[in-house]
Amino acid sequence: MFRVDVAVLGATGAVGQRFIQLLADHPWFRVAEVVASDRSAGKPYAEACRWVLNGQPPVAVAGLIVLPLDAPLRSPIVLSALPTEVAKSLEPELAARGHVIASNTSSHRMASDVPLLIPEINGDHIRLIDAQRRDRGWTRGALVTTPNCTSTPVVMALAPLVQFGIAQVNVVSLQAVSGAGYPGVASLDIFDNVVPYIGGEEDKVETEPLKMLGTFADDHIDPLAAAISAACNRVPVIDGHIVCISVGFKAGNKPSLRQVREAWTNYRGLDITRDLPSAADPILIYTEEQDRPQPRRDRDAGHGMATTIGRLRQDSILDIKFVALAHNTIRGAAGGAILNAELLVAQGYVAEAEQLSRTAVAVTMD
Amino acid sequence: MFRVDVAVLGATGAVGQRFIQLLADHPWFRVAEVVASDRSAGKPYAEACRWVLNGQPPVAVAGLIVLPLDAPLRSPIVLSALPTEVAKSLEPELAARGHVIASNTSSHRMASDVPLLIPEINGDHIRLIDAQRRDRGWTRGALVTTPNCTSTPVVMALAPLVQFGIAQVNVVSLQAVSGAGYPGVASLDIFDNVVPYIGGEEDKVETEPLKMLGTFADDHIDPLAAAISAACNRVPVIDGHIVCISVGFKAGNKPSLRQVREAWTNYRGLDITRDLPSAADPILIYTEEQDRPQPRRDRDAGHGMATTIGRLRQDSILDIKFVALAHNTIRGAAGGAILNAELLVAQGYVAEAEQLSRTAVAVTMD
Amino acid sequence: MFRVDVAVLGATGAVGQRFIQLLADHPWFRVAEVVASDRSAGKPYAEACRWVLNGQPPVAVAGLIVLPLDAPLRSPIVLSALPTEVAKSLEPELAARGHVIASNTSSHRMASDVPLLIPEINGDHIRLIDAQRRDRGWTRGALVTTPNCTSTPVVMALAPLVQFGIAQVNVVSLQAVSGAGYPGVASLDIFDNVVPYIGGEEDKVETEPLKMLGTFADDHIDPLAAAISAACNRVPVIDGHIVCISVGFKAGNKPSLRQVREAWTNYRGLDITRDLPSAADPILIYTEEQDRPQPRRDRDAGHGMATTIGRLRQDSILDIKFVALAHNTIRGAAGGAILNAELLVAQGYVAEAEQLSRTAVAVTMD
Amino acid sequence: MFRVDVAVLGATGAVGQRFIQLLADHPWFRVAEVVASDRSAGKPYAEACRWVLNGQPPVAVAGLIVLPLDAPLRSPIVLSALPTEVAKSLEPELAARGHVIASNTSSHRMASDVPLLIPEINGDHIRLIDAQRRDRGWTRGALVTTPNCTSTPVVMALAPLVQFGIAQVNVVSLQAVSGAGYPGVASLDIFDNVVPYIGGEEDKVETEPLKMLGTFADDHIDPLAAAISAACNRVPVIDGHIVCISVGFKAGNKPSLRQVREAWTNYRGLDITRDLPSAADPILIYTEEQDRPQPRRDRDAGHGMATTIGRLRQDSILDIKFVALAHNTIRGAAGGAILNAELLVAQGYVAEAEQLSRTAVAVTMD
Repeated sequence: MFRVDVAVLGATGAVGQRFIQLLADHPWFRVAEVVASDRSAGKPYAEACRWVLNGQPPVAVAGLIVLPLDAPLRSPIVLSALPTEVAKSLEPELAARGHVIASNTSSHRMASDVPLLIPEINGDHIRLIDAQRRDRGWTRGALVTTPNCTSTPVVMALAPLVQFGIAQVNVVSLQAVSGAGYPGVASLDIFDNVVPYIGGEEDKVETEPLKMLGTFADDHIDPLAAAISAACNRVPVIDGHIVCISVGFKAGNKPSLRQVREAWTNYRGLDITRDLPSAADPILIYTEEQDRPQPRRDRDAGHGMATTIGRLRQDSILDIKFVALAHNTIRGAAGGAILNAELLVAQGYVAEAEQLSRTAVAVTMD
Repeated sequence: MFRVDVAVLGATGAVGQRFIQLLADHPWFRVAEVVASDRSAGKPYAEACRWVLNGQPPVAVAGLIVLPLDAPLRSPIVLSALPTEVAKSLEPELAARGHVIASNTSSHRMASDVPLLIPEINGDHIRLIDAQRRDRGWTRGALVTTPNCTSTPVVMALAPLVQFGIAQVNVVSLQAVSGAGYPGVASLDIFDNVVPYIGGEEDKVETEPLKMLGTFADDHIDPLAAAISAACNRVPVIDGHIVCISVGFKAGNKPSLRQVREAWTNYRGLDITRDLPSAADPILIYTEEQDRPQPRRDRDAGHGMATTIGRLRQDSILDIKFVALAHNTIRGAAGGAILNAELLVAQGYVAEAEQLSRTAVAVTMD
Repeated sequence: MFRVDVAVLGATGAVGQRFIQLLADHPWFRVAEVVASDRSAGKPYAEACRWVLNGQPPVAVAGLIVLPLDAPLRSPIVLSALPTEVAKSLEPELAARGHVIASNTSSHRMASDVPLLIPEINGDHIRLIDAQRRDRGWTRGALVTTPNCTSTPVVMALAPLVQFGIAQVNVVSLQAVSGAGYPGVASLDIFDNVVPYIGGEEDKVETEPLKMLGTFADDHIDPLAAAISAACNRVPVIDGHIVCISVGFKAGNKPSLRQVREAWTNYRGLDITRDLPSAADPILIYTEEQDRPQPRRDRDAGHGMATTIGRLRQDSILDIKFVALAHNTIRGAAGGAILNAELLVAQGYVAEAEQLSRTAVAVTMD
Repeated sequence: MFRVDVAVLGATGAVGQRFIQLLADHPWFRVAEVVASDRSAGKPYAEACRWVLNGQPPVAVAGLIVLPLDAPLRSPIVLSALPTEVAKSLEPELAARGHVIASNTSSHRMASDVPLLIPEINGDHIRLIDAQRRDRGWTRGALVTTPNCTSTPVVMALAPLVQFGIAQVNVVSLQAVSGAGYPGVASLDIFDNVVPYIGGEEDKVETEPLKMLGTFADDHIDPLAAAISAACNRVPVIDGHIVCISVGFKAGNKPSLRQVREAWTNYRGLDITRDLPSAADPILIYTEEQDRPQPRRDRDAGHGMATTIGRLRQDSILDIKFVALAHNTIRGAAGGAILNAELLVAQGYVAEAEQLSRTAVAVTMD
């Protein structure tokens, strides 16, 4: 079976480990290179890495020697979970050298020529790469990013509602500790506690969704014209971010609760992602149970790639309110970036994987 | 030292235990009678009660024989933590028999002639008792209530802002498990989890604060004319409810962030509560630390009777947003009801405690 | 594909739900009947049951109408997660009516003619059924049981060491809350806490392993002649029981640490369980990592059916000490009982499943 | 009121903060100097320190400028919560310069001339200082230490039983995360989990108690001749270490359960500690409740300085078993070291505090 080699940057961190775990039996990709900081470089992965997920690292990766950040890479696809500062310069360098990068870091998310993707929602934004390559002089390389883990369920729940004219969105998040990486949140800070602040998070949640829900305009995205207000909290949960959302619609086209519910249950996402290996189906799950979604019980829906929504009701200030949940280190990080890489392959942006894009993927954009 | 006898109804439950704990060294009150359901009646308190607070029940109460719900009581003051259904009929009966009731249950909170009190905020609503006694034919008895535990920090944070013209309030709560009593929330439901629903809670948070922030009008309260929207979540925290609040003000008098902060830091509450034994001083604490208030670290501020506020900032939809915290079983339940009882004494509504109201309390309403 | 119908007793409880979940795609068994108390009977399973596991009940079972405890059953195999008192009389009644029962309750575990089984370890004890049928006058029916969830890792870790002459075993357990069922342990009792007592548990851990590690003697089991001392603790963990074990061997044949380690890593269990669908392979996992096994990270090893052992070292009082872990609601409850049912089929004790025992199972006891 | 100045070394760490908190209203001591690593030095304490305890740092200390490790100190008494490596050289240097050190670090605990103290138990070992000063050439300085936080409840529970001839002690601990300091245990490592390993801990628990339960012999301690076996586990608890202990006694004088219980309840500790400000009274609490002691509910007994014991029963391998609990950062760390400092003052080892030792302390050793 043909598989494309991928390199994982920041492979020993919490998101890097999710990459390794999720790629263990991937039908298209094979982890060929693992890259991490100098502290880890030169050691076998299993030894360099303090595995914080359940079980053990996959055998096929355990023995790979960790490469340093400046090592030349031979994998056409690069999945990046680098720290922001390192990603800032290294990711464009790798793209310039011809690698196609699916990044999970925030450094380039809001750059005008970088697609910020949840493929089922705005996979068509991938065409920004044409401008990106033209303007940056990249021939084979490219750089796409996933959104912040809290922006993810916001965008996924709002996408089917854009048709009704979203004007205002209030978001209060209850976020899992894994969102802070490893070692991340000290147990003394979060046991029997809530921390009502996460550095930089509210800014991201107030801006990223507008870009993602916006419209592709050749060399940039016209963002959605709406206001988002975010308040972000850390809670004692391992995985799974809950968002309590209220939405105000523009006058003239306000949907009924039934219309909103139907918009969610009928939502299928873009055709171009229908057959990607990591795409969830359904993408959105609306639950009628009054006390759901819950992180522990619903985060693994759709192998961690579906967003679960519940508790839709009228709002006495804006128009509607509801609760949404997504798995922050799968859909909101590593799984999302892998899906981005799959889209890059399927849409022909990875020359070395032409074989896959021709045979495995039937549906194209046109 | 002169002390007034109090009876505690629902004494073996979680809030009942807080009553017993907080009254252990109370300067005015002495727990003389403990009342609970038939299952407990007839046994010594320490045996009938599965003590769920830290340490052990106070020695002075441990040996009291639990009385059944229909026992005649001799304590002039009755603190009630009864289940809603039982409270509905029993509390008015006891008031009719001459007892002054400070209740923590929701059954009568919204009755037009029942004061719903946070004494420092709206202690003047206690005068509703005059209409209550007149209309119900009670001579010595009376019934006052505390608000819902989540309404408490909402009201305490909003009270100093009423002057600016509150129009809209969005509340998302992160509530501790003790709010559900004992046994309450099963560990299998809440470990590594959030439950985004608490039965009946959102209704209470959307109505009670408007009554409390309203104006005394002889035989009823004119509620504050504002809209509240609430979304309530249970989180894995033992004690302490966090509320993420955003507020919209009426046009024409919108305060600056500085004015809001000063309104909080200058707030002293009503004079009539200044010298009550359980009153917090300060009532409100504004913290500049960016990641506070936190339940575990701030719930005990002011012996659990202060509300801590933080993270004041502009809101892109309404006008301002911030975070507030109160201890749900002290300020939001047992401590609040004890403070209500103290106010009843100080304001002369407890005939048997006249001695206290004359000597211990200097400040009166006029 | 041929499948045998099974009935699940106590189907709405925490262990009952695990039965339903684990049987969702079982190659031999099909859940045909769900039985629960009067409160649930007559309702569709999904409605009667408050599903406490992750996700949702399997669709195939969600619509089954819950049967009352006294309903006549038509499934040849009955999996029981009944409360002890109910199981006491109902299980033998069902066996008398011709059903083959794999029970998870403690009522009959220590009866001399009831096999107490971990199939890989002492599956040969199943032959007690011959005496059982003879003495009780059962023709087609039979009753076998799983051990207590804490006895499980004890027995699994000790079985390969019996050859060295076990004399004394000290066990201190750290047990997950799911062991207490649902609602089980109140969050107020176990958050930020340990409860160093579990009713009846220590007795079970001190007796059950001796029967299981004993020798089949036609109509009874000669128990292992050793002393076990147990101290049982509840800890704030969802699933997975840890046991800290120290072992003293009889003089003359004390093994080295290397011999103990090899006994574990070479252990394959009885041949008769090799091909059962739910059997783990390997049964025992010895980990060299100094801080493992850990409940969250190792409980799912072998689909929750393997026991993980670590930290083998000399003991200054007895001879050796180590740590073992098993998933308490899979290996230690529902999964163990399903494996028992598989063994019953494979060994020809379920007449209606003869087809399976002939074709699917090659290895027999002789 | 006369108070002696104390310096706190490692003042910004978790134990350092406990020192500051416990000394806030101390009748003998005043925090005059706070010392920490270069990263903190030069800043006001409140700014240098990320306060991880509840509430806020005491006002009197918040403004103190943090001194570097090599600063000359003027406080006669030094409380040390330094990292082991730093303590190794710095503590003796300070003693050589005339300071009296009550250390909480492990570096010098097992040195033959260093008293390892739980004052109520073995306060008479303080006389080792005479040999210490003589041999090391210290005139005014001295160095005493507290035991490891897990050794603490072991020693406190065993001390009254030494009279019966202790031969063997098996200890399995369930330890709180605060024992690892701050940031210490990552939440991703311990949520819904147990870590059955704590580096170096088992060695300490197997050796320190023997020294402490031994006999003062002029220039060294003759350790108790007994064997201790320890297995140490980290559990998801904030404060409070539980130990499950079994004890074997020498032949000839084995106590009954009643004798053991009486030994505990009658235990008063050494006279020389009776009036020290931080001494607990009682030192030991034996509880008859079958599910106690519990960390959250019992750790604060005696202001965190008492050890609570429960569940005494026969052991089928050794002779008796039981459960003990002590607050690990109060009795097992900061509170213990403060009590050591009080004993040093009371026994006249702090020249500058002669006034206190003469007036405030009536009982002397002779």
